[in-house]
Amino acid sequence: MNREQLFEQIKKKRSFLCVGLDSDILKIPAHLKETSDPIFAFNKEIIDATQDLCVAYKPNLAFYESLGVSGWESLEKTVHYIREKYPEQFIIADAKRGDIGNTSNLYARAFFDRMDFDAVTVAPYMGEDSVKPFMTYLDKWVILLALTSNKGAFDFQFIKNDENGEQLFETVLKTSQQWGTGDNMMYVVGATKAEKLEEIRTIVPDHFLLVPGVGAQGGSLQEVAKYGMNEQCGLLVNSSRGIIYASNDTDFAEKARAAAMEVQVDMEELLLEAELL
Amino acid sequence: MNREQLFEQIKKKRSFLCVGLDSDILKIPAHLKETSDPIFAFNKEIIDATQDLCVAYKPNLAFYESLGVSGWESLEKTVHYIREKYPEQFIIADAKRGDIGNTSNLYARAFFDRMDFDAVTVAPYMGEDSVKPFMTYLDKWVILLALTSNKGAFDFQFIKNDENGEQLFETVLKTSQQWGTGDNMMYVVGATKAEKLEEIRTIVPDHFLLVPGVGAQGGSLQEVAKYGMNEQCGLLVNSSRGIIYASNDTDFAEKARAAAMEVQVDMEELLLEAELL
Repeated sequence: MNREQLFEQIKKKRSFLCVGLDSDILKIPAHLKETSDPIFAFNKEIIDATQDLCVAYKPNLAFYESLGVSGWESLEKTVHYIREKYPEQFIIADAKRGDIGNTSNLYARAFFDRMDFDAVTVAPYMGEDSVKPFMTYLDKWVILLALTSNKGAFDFQFIKNDENGEQLFETVLKTSQQWGTGDNMMYVVGATKAEKLEEIRTIVPDHFLLVPGVGAQGGSLQEVAKYGMNEQCGLLVNSSRGIIYASNDTDFAEKARAAAMEVQVDMEELLLEAELL
Repeated sequence: MNREQLFEQIKKKRSFLCVGLDSDILKIPAHLKETSDPIFAFNKEIIDATQDLCVAYKPNLAFYESLGVSGWESLEKTVHYIREKYPEQFIIADAKRGDIGNTSNLYARAFFDRMDFDAVTVAPYMGEDSVKPFMTYLDKWVILLALTSNKGAFDFQFIKNDENGEQLFETVLKTSQQWGTGDNMMYVVGATKAEKLEEIRTIVPDHFLLVPGVGAQGGSLQEVAKYGMNEQCGLLVNSSRGIIYASNDTDFAEKARAAAMEVQVDMEELLLEAELL
Protein backbone atom coordinates (compact mmCIF):
# COMPACT_ATOMS: atom_id res chain seq x y z
CA MET A 1 0.00 0.00 0.00
CA ASN A 2 1.33 3.44 -0.83
CA ARG A 3 1.05 6.66 1.15
CA GLU A 4 -1.85 8.12 -0.84
CA GLN A 5 -3.86 4.92 -0.46
CA LEU A 6 -3.24 4.96 3.28
CA PHE A 7 -4.43 8.55 3.59
CA GLU A 8 -7.51 7.68 1.50
CA GLN A 9 -8.34 4.93 3.97
CA ILE A 10 -7.91 7.29 6.90
CA LYS A 11 -10.38 9.73 5.34
CA LYS A 12 -12.81 6.98 4.41
CA LYS A 13 -12.75 5.30 7.82
CA ARG A 14 -12.48 8.64 9.65
CA SER A 15 -9.86 6.94 11.76
CA PHE A 16 -6.10 6.54 12.07
CA LEU A 17 -6.36 3.64 14.48
CA CYS A 18 -4.03 0.66 14.34
CA VAL A 19 -5.22 -2.33 16.36
CA GLY A 20 -2.33 -4.20 17.95
CA LEU A 21 -2.82 -7.96 17.83
CA ASP A 22 -0.80 -8.79 20.98
CA SER A 23 -2.78 -11.99 21.23
CA ASP A 24 -1.65 -13.89 24.31
CA ILE A 25 -2.79 -17.46 24.81
CA LEU A 26 -2.81 -16.77 28.57
CA LYS A 27 -5.22 -13.84 28.23
CA ILE A 28 -7.77 -14.78 25.57
CA PRO A 29 -11.26 -15.86 26.65
CA ALA A 30 -11.46 -19.40 28.02
CA HIS A 31 -14.14 -20.59 25.59
CA LEU A 32 -11.76 -20.09 22.64
CA LYS A 33 -9.14 -22.40 24.06
CA GLU A 34 -11.10 -25.43 22.93
CA THR A 35 -10.95 -24.47 19.26
CA SER A 36 -8.23 -25.93 17.03
CA ASP A 37 -6.40 -22.61 16.70
CA PRO A 38 -7.39 -20.36 19.63
CA ILE A 39 -5.13 -17.45 18.64
CA PHE A 40 -6.45 -17.32 15.09
CA ALA A 41 -10.05 -17.72 16.34
CA PHE A 42 -9.48 -14.78 18.68
CA ASN A 43 -7.85 -12.61 16.00
CA LYS A 44 -10.56 -13.37 13.47
CA GLU A 45 -13.31 -12.21 15.79
CA ILE A 46 -11.37 -9.12 16.83
CA ILE A 47 -10.69 -8.24 13.19
CA ASP A 48 -14.28 -8.77 12.05
CA ALA A 49 -15.50 -6.62 14.94
CA THR A 50 -13.10 -3.72 14.38
CA GLN A 51 -12.19 -3.61 10.67
CA ASP A 52 -14.44 -0.69 9.75
CA LEU A 53 -13.05 1.39 12.63
CA CYS A 54 -9.33 1.05 11.96
CA VAL A 55 -6.92 1.36 9.06
CA ALA A 56 -4.19 -1.00 10.25
CA TYR A 57 -3.49 -4.18 12.21
CA LYS A 58 -0.23 -4.84 13.96
CA PRO A 59 0.52 -8.39 15.09
CA ASN A 60 3.29 -8.35 17.68
CA LEU A 61 5.58 -11.17 16.65
CA ALA A 62 6.71 -12.10 20.17
CA PHE A 63 3.25 -13.36 21.05
CA TYR A 64 3.24 -15.74 18.09
CA GLU A 65 6.84 -16.89 18.45
CA SER A 66 6.25 -17.77 22.08
CA LEU A 67 3.96 -20.56 20.82
CA GLY A 68 6.49 -21.97 18.38
CA VAL A 69 5.31 -23.59 15.15
CA SER A 70 1.63 -23.30 16.03
CA GLY A 71 2.05 -19.60 16.80
CA TRP A 72 3.70 -19.07 13.46
CA GLU A 73 0.76 -20.85 11.81
CA SER A 74 -1.70 -18.58 13.60
CA LEU A 75 0.28 -15.56 12.41
CA GLU A 76 0.34 -16.66 8.77
CA LYS A 77 -3.39 -17.41 8.88
CA THR A 78 -4.12 -14.03 10.45
CA VAL A 79 -2.19 -12.08 7.82
CA HIS A 80 -3.79 -14.13 5.06
CA TYR A 81 -7.27 -13.58 6.53
CA ILE A 82 -6.87 -9.82 6.68
CA ARG A 83 -5.34 -9.65 3.20
CA GLU A 84 -8.16 -11.71 1.66
CA LYS A 85 -11.14 -10.30 3.48
CA TYR A 86 -10.09 -6.71 4.17
CA PRO A 87 -7.49 -5.86 1.49
CA GLU A 88 -7.69 -2.17 2.34
CA GLN A 89 -6.01 -2.76 5.71
CA PHE A 90 -2.34 -1.85 6.28
CA ILE A 91 -0.64 -4.78 8.04
CA ILE A 92 2.39 -4.19 10.24
CA ALA A 93 4.79 -6.89 11.49
CA ASP A 94 5.85 -5.54 14.87
CA ALA A 95 9.09 -7.46 14.88
CA LYS A 96 11.82 -4.95 15.82
CA ARG A 97 14.24 -6.76 13.51
CA GLY A 98 17.58 -5.53 12.18
CA ASP A 99 20.81 -7.36 11.37
CA ILE A 100 23.69 -7.21 8.87
CA GLY A 101 22.52 -6.69 5.28
CA ASN A 102 22.80 -10.33 4.29
CA THR A 103 20.50 -11.28 7.19
CA SER A 104 18.06 -8.36 6.97
CA ASN A 105 17.47 -9.50 3.39
CA LEU A 106 16.17 -12.77 4.76
CA TYR A 107 13.90 -11.02 7.28
CA ALA A 108 12.50 -8.98 4.41
CA ARG A 109 11.87 -12.21 2.53
CA ALA A 110 10.03 -13.57 5.59
CA PHE A 111 7.70 -10.60 6.03
CA PHE A 112 7.19 -9.37 2.48
CA ASP A 113 7.54 -12.48 0.28
CA ARG A 114 6.53 -15.32 2.54
CA MET A 115 3.83 -13.33 4.30
CA ASP A 116 2.17 -10.29 2.78
CA PHE A 117 2.82 -7.65 5.42
CA ASP A 118 2.90 -3.99 4.33
CA ALA A 119 5.50 -2.93 6.88
CA VAL A 120 7.95 -4.16 9.43
CA THR A 121 9.32 -2.41 12.53
CA VAL A 122 13.12 -2.25 12.58
CA ALA A 123 15.65 -1.26 15.27
CA PRO A 124 18.27 1.27 14.10
CA TYR A 125 21.33 0.27 16.16
CA MET A 126 23.11 -1.58 13.34
CA GLY A 127 22.69 1.27 10.84
CA GLU A 128 22.09 1.58 7.13
CA ASP A 129 22.78 -1.87 5.76
CA SER A 130 20.51 -3.41 8.40
CA VAL A 131 17.58 -1.23 7.30
CA LYS A 132 17.83 -0.82 3.54
CA PRO A 133 17.04 -4.42 2.48
CA PHE A 134 13.47 -3.84 3.68
CA MET A 135 13.09 -0.93 1.26
CA THR A 136 13.74 -2.77 -1.96
CA TYR A 137 10.12 -3.95 -2.18
CA LEU A 138 7.58 -1.74 -3.99
CA ASP A 139 4.96 -0.20 -1.69
CA LYS A 140 6.42 -1.96 1.37
CA TRP A 141 7.60 -0.02 4.39
CA VAL A 142 10.21 0.10 7.12
CA ILE A 143 9.00 1.55 10.40
CA LEU A 144 12.19 2.55 12.19
CA LEU A 145 12.37 2.91 15.98
CA ALA A 146 13.09 6.52 16.84
CA LEU A 147 11.69 7.32 20.27
CA THR A 148 10.02 4.42 22.02
CA SER A 149 7.26 4.51 24.62
CA ASN A 150 9.00 2.54 27.37
CA LYS A 151 11.06 3.57 30.38
CA GLY A 152 14.22 2.11 28.84
CA ALA A 153 13.98 4.76 26.09
CA PHE A 154 15.80 7.06 28.52
CA ASP A 155 18.88 4.81 28.64
CA PHE A 156 20.27 5.66 25.20
CA GLN A 157 17.78 7.49 22.97
CA PHE A 158 18.35 10.90 24.58
CA ILE A 159 22.16 10.80 24.59
CA LYS A 160 23.47 14.04 23.12
CA ASN A 161 26.09 13.98 20.37
CA ASP A 162 29.13 16.07 21.31
CA GLU A 163 29.56 17.27 17.74
CA ASN A 164 26.19 18.92 17.28
CA GLY A 165 24.15 18.53 20.46
CA GLU A 166 21.66 16.27 18.71
CA GLN A 167 19.99 13.57 20.75
CA LEU A 168 20.37 10.01 19.47
CA PHE A 169 16.74 9.71 18.35
CA GLU A 170 17.16 12.94 16.35
CA THR A 171 20.29 11.58 14.69
CA VAL A 172 18.38 8.41 13.84
CA LEU A 173 15.64 10.51 12.23
CA LYS A 174 18.09 12.67 10.28
CA THR A 175 20.55 9.99 9.17
CA SER A 176 17.88 7.52 8.12
CA GLN A 177 16.27 10.04 5.78
CA GLN A 178 19.22 9.39 3.47
CA TRP A 179 18.20 5.74 3.28
CA GLY A 180 14.58 6.09 2.15
CA THR A 181 11.71 8.50 1.67
CA GLY A 182 8.33 9.31 3.14
CA ASP A 183 6.97 6.71 0.73
CA ASN A 184 8.81 3.75 2.23
CA MET A 185 9.76 4.80 5.77
CA MET A 186 7.81 5.60 8.89
CA TYR A 187 9.04 6.09 12.44
CA VAL A 188 7.97 4.76 15.82
CA VAL A 189 7.39 7.58 18.29
CA GLY A 190 5.82 6.66 21.61
CA ALA A 191 2.71 8.53 22.74
CA THR A 192 4.27 8.77 26.19
CA LYS A 193 6.73 11.23 24.64
CA ALA A 194 4.04 13.33 22.90
CA GLU A 195 5.69 16.62 23.89
CA LYS A 196 8.63 15.59 21.71
CA LEU A 197 6.44 15.30 18.63
CA GLU A 198 6.66 19.02 17.89
CA GLU A 199 10.46 18.76 17.73
CA ILE A 200 10.23 15.53 15.70
CA ARG A 201 7.92 17.18 13.16
CA THR A 202 10.58 19.80 12.45
CA ILE A 203 12.88 16.96 11.35
CA VAL A 204 10.34 14.70 9.60
CA PRO A 205 7.39 16.91 8.65
CA ASP A 206 5.98 14.53 6.04
CA HIS A 207 6.64 11.02 7.25
CA PHE A 208 3.99 8.84 8.82
CA LEU A 209 4.58 8.05 12.48
CA LEU A 210 3.47 4.87 14.21
CA VAL A 211 2.52 5.86 17.73
CA PRO A 212 2.21 3.19 20.41
CA GLY A 213 1.57 3.91 24.05
CA VAL A 214 -1.92 5.41 23.98
CA GLY A 215 -4.10 3.55 26.48
CA ALA A 216 -2.45 0.98 28.77
CA GLN A 217 0.87 2.84 28.66
CA GLY A 218 -0.72 6.23 29.48
CA GLY A 219 -0.23 8.41 26.38
CA SER A 220 -2.83 10.99 25.31
CA LEU A 221 -4.43 10.85 21.86
CA GLN A 222 -5.22 14.57 21.92
CA GLU A 223 -1.60 15.49 22.61
CA VAL A 224 -0.37 13.16 19.90
CA ALA A 225 -2.73 14.73 17.35
CA LYS A 226 -1.95 18.26 18.48
CA TYR A 227 1.80 17.91 17.99
CA GLY A 228 2.04 15.10 15.47
CA MET A 229 -0.66 15.47 12.82
CA ASN A 230 0.32 16.71 9.36
CA GLU A 231 -1.51 17.40 6.10
CA GLN A 232 -1.94 13.71 5.32
CA CYS A 233 -2.73 12.94 8.94
CA GLY A 234 0.72 11.32 9.17
CA LEU A 235 -0.24 9.26 12.20
CA LEU A 236 -1.10 5.67 12.90
CA VAL A 237 -1.98 5.44 16.56
CA ASN A 238 -1.84 1.95 17.98
CA SER A 239 -3.93 0.48 20.74
CA SER A 240 -3.52 -3.14 21.73
CA ARG A 241 -4.56 -4.20 25.22
CA GLY A 242 -7.20 -1.46 25.60
CA ILE A 243 -9.12 -2.91 22.66
CA ILE A 244 -8.41 -6.61 22.38
CA TYR A 245 -8.73 -7.29 26.11
CA ALA A 246 -11.68 -4.95 26.76
CA SER A 247 -13.43 -8.12 28.00
CA ASN A 248 -12.15 -11.65 28.48
CA ASP A 249 -15.57 -13.23 28.32
CA THR A 250 -17.75 -14.40 25.42
CA ASP A 251 -18.58 -10.76 24.66
CA PHE A 252 -14.91 -9.92 23.97
CA ALA A 253 -15.42 -9.03 20.29
CA GLU A 254 -18.40 -6.80 21.03
CA LYS A 255 -16.48 -5.05 23.82
CA ALA A 256 -13.43 -4.70 21.56
CA ARG A 257 -15.66 -3.04 18.98
CA ALA A 258 -17.02 -0.64 21.59
CA ALA A 259 -13.49 0.23 22.74
CA ALA A 260 -12.31 0.74 19.15
CA MET A 261 -15.33 2.89 18.39
CA GLU A 262 -14.61 5.11 21.35
CA VAL A 263 -11.14 5.77 19.93
CA GLN A 264 -12.46 6.18 16.38
CA VAL A 265 -15.00 8.80 17.49
CA ASP A 266 -12.20 10.81 19.12
CA MET A 267 -10.06 10.41 16.02
CA GLU A 268 -12.87 11.59 13.74
CA GLU A 269 -13.20 14.72 15.82
CA LEU A 270 -9.44 15.36 15.63
CA LEU A 271 -9.45 14.86 11.86
CA LEU A 272 -12.38 17.29 11.54
CA GLU A 273 -10.60 19.86 13.73
CA ALA A 274 -7.55 19.56 11.48
CA GLU A 275 -9.84 20.03 8.43
CA LEU A 276 -8.71 16.78 6.89
CA LEU A 277 -12.24 15.44 6.34
CA MET B 1 24.92 -23.54 30.93
CA ASN B 2 26.92 -21.39 33.32
CA ARG B 3 30.22 -19.59 32.75
CA GLU B 4 32.41 -22.21 34.40
CA GLN B 5 30.86 -25.00 32.36
CA LEU B 6 31.44 -23.02 29.19
CA PHE B 7 35.11 -22.47 30.05
CA GLU B 8 35.45 -26.18 30.84
CA GLN B 9 34.15 -27.00 27.37
CA ILE B 10 36.58 -24.56 25.79
CA LYS B 11 39.48 -26.26 27.55
CA LYS B 12 38.22 -29.73 26.73
CA LYS B 13 37.60 -29.02 23.05
CA ARG B 14 40.66 -26.75 22.80
CA SER B 15 38.40 -24.43 20.86
CA PHE B 16 36.25 -21.34 21.29
CA LEU B 17 34.54 -21.74 17.96
CA CYS B 18 30.85 -21.05 17.47
CA VAL B 19 29.43 -22.43 14.23
CA GLY B 20 26.79 -20.14 12.76
CA LEU B 21 23.88 -22.07 11.27
CA ASP B 22 22.90 -19.49 8.62
CA SER B 23 21.29 -22.30 6.70
CA ASP B 24 19.87 -20.92 3.47
CA ILE B 25 17.59 -23.07 1.37
CA LEU B 26 19.05 -21.36 -1.72
CA LYS B 27 22.62 -22.33 -0.82
CA ILE B 28 22.50 -25.86 0.58
CA PRO B 29 23.60 -28.78 -1.62
CA ALA B 30 21.07 -29.79 -4.25
CA HIS B 31 20.86 -33.44 -3.18
CA LEU B 32 19.40 -32.42 0.19
CA LYS B 33 16.49 -30.59 -1.36
CA GLU B 34 14.70 -33.85 -2.00
CA THR B 35 14.56 -34.78 1.69
CA SER B 36 11.45 -33.96 3.73
CA ASP B 37 13.22 -31.25 5.75
CA PRO B 38 16.28 -30.06 3.79
CA ILE B 39 17.33 -27.43 6.33
CA PHE B 40 17.28 -29.86 9.23
CA ALA B 41 19.05 -32.51 7.13
CA PHE B 42 21.75 -29.97 6.32
CA ASN B 43 22.11 -28.80 9.94
CA LYS B 44 22.25 -32.34 11.27
CA GLU B 45 25.14 -33.27 9.02
CA ILE B 46 26.99 -30.04 9.74
CA ILE B 47 26.52 -30.56 13.48
CA ASP B 48 27.62 -34.20 13.45
CA ALA B 49 30.70 -33.23 11.44
CA THR B 50 31.79 -30.30 13.63
CA GLN B 51 30.55 -30.96 17.18
CA ASP B 52 33.91 -32.03 18.63
CA LEU B 53 35.61 -28.94 17.19
CA CYS B 54 33.29 -26.22 18.50
CA VAL B 55 31.64 -25.23 21.78
CA ALA B 56 28.58 -23.43 20.42
CA TYR B 57 26.05 -23.34 17.61
CA LYS B 58 24.27 -20.20 16.53
CA PRO B 59 21.20 -20.53 14.32
CA ASN B 60 20.45 -17.20 12.67
CA LEU B 61 16.70 -16.80 13.03
CA ALA B 62 16.20 -14.87 9.80
CA PHE B 63 17.10 -17.90 7.71
CA TYR B 64 14.41 -20.00 9.42
CA GLU B 65 11.73 -17.30 9.49
CA SER B 66 12.16 -16.73 5.77
CA LEU B 67 10.68 -20.22 5.28
CA GLY B 68 7.65 -19.62 7.50
CA VAL B 69 6.16 -22.50 9.46
CA SER B 70 8.44 -25.11 7.92
CA GLY B 71 11.50 -23.01 8.79
CA TRP B 72 10.33 -22.72 12.37
CA GLU B 73 9.93 -26.52 12.46
CA SER B 74 13.49 -26.97 11.17
CA LEU B 75 14.73 -24.61 13.86
CA GLU B 76 12.94 -26.41 16.70
CA LYS B 77 14.21 -29.76 15.44
CA THR B 78 17.76 -28.42 15.19
CA VAL B 79 17.80 -27.08 18.75
CA HIS B 80 16.25 -30.28 20.03
CA TYR B 81 18.79 -32.40 18.14
CA ILE B 82 21.77 -30.52 19.55
CA ARG B 83 20.32 -30.54 23.06
CA GLU B 84 19.68 -34.29 23.00
CA LYS B 85 22.77 -35.52 21.23
CA TYR B 86 25.40 -32.96 22.26
CA PRO B 87 24.17 -31.51 25.57
CA GLU B 88 27.54 -29.87 26.22
CA GLN B 89 26.98 -27.41 23.36
CA PHE B 90 26.03 -23.78 24.07
CA ILE B 91 23.14 -22.82 21.75
CA ILE B 92 22.62 -19.21 20.72
CA ALA B 93 19.48 -17.80 19.10
CA ASP B 94 20.85 -15.06 16.87
CA ALA B 95 17.63 -13.12 16.85
CA LYS B 96 18.57 -9.49 17.63
CA ARG B 97 15.32 -9.09 19.54
CA GLY B 98 14.34 -6.34 21.99
CA ASP B 99 11.00 -4.70 22.75
CA ILE B 100 9.10 -3.21 25.71
CA GLY B 101 9.29 -5.38 28.84
CA ASN B 102 5.89 -6.97 28.36
CA THR B 103 6.93 -8.12 24.87
CA SER B 104 10.53 -9.09 25.64
CA ASN B 105 9.05 -11.42 28.25
CA LEU B 106 7.30 -13.27 25.46
CA TYR B 107 10.47 -13.47 23.37
CA ALA B 108 12.22 -14.96 26.39
CA ARG B 109 9.40 -17.49 26.67
CA ALA B 110 9.90 -18.36 22.97
CA PHE B 111 13.65 -18.94 23.19
CA PHE B 112 14.12 -20.29 26.71
CA ASP B 113 10.84 -22.08 27.55
CA ARG B 114 9.50 -23.14 24.19
CA MET B 115 12.92 -23.94 22.78
CA ASP B 116 15.92 -24.70 24.93
CA PHE B 117 18.42 -22.10 23.76
CA ASP B 118 21.16 -21.02 26.17
CA ALA B 119 21.33 -17.45 24.94
CA VAL B 120 19.67 -14.90 22.71
CA THR B 121 21.17 -11.85 20.98
CA VAL B 122 19.38 -8.60 21.88
CA ALA B 123 19.57 -5.06 20.46
CA PRO B 124 20.10 -2.34 23.09
CA TYR B 125 18.21 0.62 21.57
CA MET B 126 15.12 0.28 23.79
CA GLY B 127 17.11 0.07 27.02
CA GLU B 128 16.84 -1.75 30.31
CA ASP B 129 13.28 -3.07 30.35
CA SER B 130 13.76 -4.54 26.86
CA VAL B 131 16.78 -6.55 28.01
CA LYS B 132 16.12 -7.65 31.58
CA PRO B 133 13.28 -10.13 30.93
CA PHE B 134 15.83 -12.41 29.26
CA MET B 135 17.88 -12.52 32.46
CA THR B 136 15.26 -13.97 34.78
CA TYR B 137 16.05 -17.52 33.67
CA LEU B 138 18.74 -19.47 35.54
CA ASP B 139 21.89 -20.13 33.48
CA LYS B 140 20.40 -18.43 30.42
CA TRP B 141 22.13 -15.52 28.76
CA VAL B 142 21.55 -12.23 26.99
CA ILE B 143 24.13 -11.38 24.35
CA LEU B 144 23.78 -7.64 23.88
CA LEU B 145 24.87 -5.88 20.69
CA ALA B 146 27.72 -3.51 21.50
CA LEU B 147 29.89 -3.03 18.42
CA THR B 148 28.72 -4.87 15.35
CA SER B 149 30.78 -6.13 12.42
CA ASN B 150 28.92 -4.40 9.61
CA LYS B 151 29.43 -1.09 7.81
CA GLY B 152 26.27 0.37 9.36
CA ALA B 153 27.97 0.13 12.77
CA PHE B 154 29.52 3.50 11.93
CA ASP B 155 26.14 5.22 11.64
CA PHE B 156 25.35 5.38 15.37
CA GLN B 157 27.60 3.15 17.50
CA PHE B 158 30.53 5.60 17.52
CA ILE B 159 28.53 8.72 18.35
CA LYS B 160 30.22 10.53 21.23
CA ASN B 161 28.21 11.61 24.25
CA ASP B 162 28.64 15.32 24.92
CA GLU B 163 28.59 14.78 28.69
CA ASN B 164 31.56 12.45 28.96
CA GLY B 165 32.99 11.82 25.49
CA GLU B 166 31.94 8.18 25.60
CA GLN B 167 31.03 6.53 22.35
CA LEU B 168 27.57 4.94 22.18
CA PHE B 169 28.88 1.37 22.24
CA GLU B 170 30.89 2.21 25.37
CA THR B 171 27.81 3.63 27.05
CA VAL B 172 25.92 0.47 26.13
CA LEU B 173 28.67 -1.61 27.75
CA LYS B 174 28.78 0.51 30.90
CA THR B 175 25.06 1.07 31.40
CA SER B 176 24.10 -2.53 30.77
CA GLN B 177 26.47 -3.79 33.46
CA GLN B 178 23.92 -2.49 35.94
CA TRP B 179 21.35 -4.86 34.46
CA GLY B 180 23.17 -8.16 34.76
CA THR B 181 26.51 -9.79 35.45
CA GLY B 182 29.25 -11.72 33.67
CA ASP B 183 27.19 -14.80 34.51
CA ASN B 184 24.15 -13.86 32.45
CA MET B 185 25.37 -11.28 29.93
CA MET B 186 27.74 -11.37 27.00
CA TYR B 187 28.36 -8.77 24.32
CA VAL B 188 28.56 -8.87 20.54
CA VAL B 189 31.78 -7.27 19.30
CA GLY B 190 32.58 -7.64 15.61
CA ALA B 191 35.97 -9.06 14.62
CA THR B 192 36.19 -6.34 11.99
CA LYS B 193 36.64 -3.93 14.90
CA ALA B 194 39.33 -6.01 16.64
CA GLU B 195 41.47 -2.97 17.45
CA LYS B 196 38.62 -1.78 19.66
CA LEU B 197 38.76 -4.91 21.78
CA GLU B 198 41.56 -3.54 23.93
CA GLU B 199 39.40 -0.55 24.86
CA ILE B 200 36.38 -2.79 25.36
CA ARG B 201 38.32 -5.06 27.72
CA THR B 202 38.99 -2.08 30.00
CA ILE B 203 35.21 -1.71 30.41
CA VAL B 204 34.20 -5.40 30.51
CA PRO B 205 37.31 -7.36 31.52
CA ASP B 206 35.43 -10.48 32.60
CA HIS B 207 32.45 -10.85 30.29
CA PHE B 208 32.34 -13.30 27.44
CA LEU B 209 32.24 -11.70 23.99
CA LEU B 210 30.55 -13.20 20.97
CA VAL B 211 32.67 -12.22 18.00
CA PRO B 212 31.23 -12.49 14.49
CA GLY B 213 33.01 -11.32 11.37
CA VAL B 214 35.99 -13.67 11.22
CA GLY B 215 36.13 -15.24 7.75
CA ALA B 216 33.70 -13.99 5.09
CA GLN B 217 33.54 -10.54 6.70
CA GLY B 218 37.34 -10.21 6.92
CA GLY B 219 38.20 -10.13 10.65
CA SER B 220 41.41 -11.70 12.00
CA LEU B 221 41.27 -14.44 14.65
CA GLN B 222 44.78 -13.60 15.87
CA GLU B 223 43.89 -9.96 16.44
CA VAL B 224 40.69 -10.91 18.23
CA ALA B 225 42.59 -13.24 20.58
CA LYS B 226 45.40 -10.76 21.12
CA TYR B 227 43.11 -7.97 22.29
CA GLY B 228 40.08 -9.86 23.52
CA MET B 229 41.13 -13.00 25.37
CA ASN B 230 40.85 -13.03 29.17
CA GLU B 231 41.59 -15.56 31.93
CA GLN B 232 38.56 -17.67 31.09
CA CYS B 233 39.16 -17.22 27.36
CA GLY B 234 36.13 -14.90 27.32
CA LEU B 235 35.60 -15.34 23.60
CA LEU B 236 33.21 -17.20 21.39
CA VAL B 237 34.31 -16.60 17.83
CA ASN B 238 31.67 -17.29 15.24
CA SER B 239 32.15 -18.53 11.73
CA SER B 240 29.15 -19.23 9.52
CA ARG B 241 29.62 -19.15 5.76
CA GLY B 242 33.31 -20.12 5.87
CA ILE B 243 32.37 -23.44 7.47
CA ILE B 244 28.87 -24.42 6.45
CA TYR B 245 29.34 -23.50 2.79
CA ALA B 246 32.92 -24.78 2.44
CA SER B 247 31.46 -26.99 -0.29
CA ASN B 248 27.99 -27.15 -1.81
CA ASP B 249 28.35 -30.67 -3.09
CA THR B 250 27.79 -34.07 -1.46
CA ASP B 251 31.07 -33.63 0.45
CA PHE B 252 29.76 -30.51 2.22
CA ALA B 253 29.91 -32.03 5.73
CA GLU B 254 33.43 -33.33 5.26
CA LYS B 255 34.58 -29.96 3.91
CA ALA B 256 32.80 -28.17 6.76
CA ARG B 257 34.71 -30.38 9.20
CA ALA B 258 37.99 -29.54 7.49
CA ALA B 259 37.21 -25.81 7.62
CA ALA B 260 36.20 -26.02 11.30
CA MET B 261 39.34 -27.98 12.11
CA GLU B 262 41.50 -25.35 10.51
CA VAL B 263 39.98 -22.77 12.84
CA GLN B 264 40.16 -25.08 15.85
CA VAL B 265 43.88 -25.73 15.29
CA ASP B 266 44.51 -21.97 15.27
CA MET B 267 42.39 -21.56 18.39
CA GLU B 268 44.25 -24.32 20.21
CA GLU B 269 47.51 -22.53 19.52
CA LEU B 270 46.11 -19.25 20.79
CA LEU B 271 44.81 -20.93 23.96
CA LEU B 272 48.21 -22.51 24.52
CA GLU B 273 49.98 -19.19 23.98
CA ALA B 274 47.67 -17.65 26.57
CA GLU B 275 48.50 -20.54 28.92
CA LEU B 276 44.85 -21.49 29.31
CA LEU B 277 45.40 -25.17 28.45
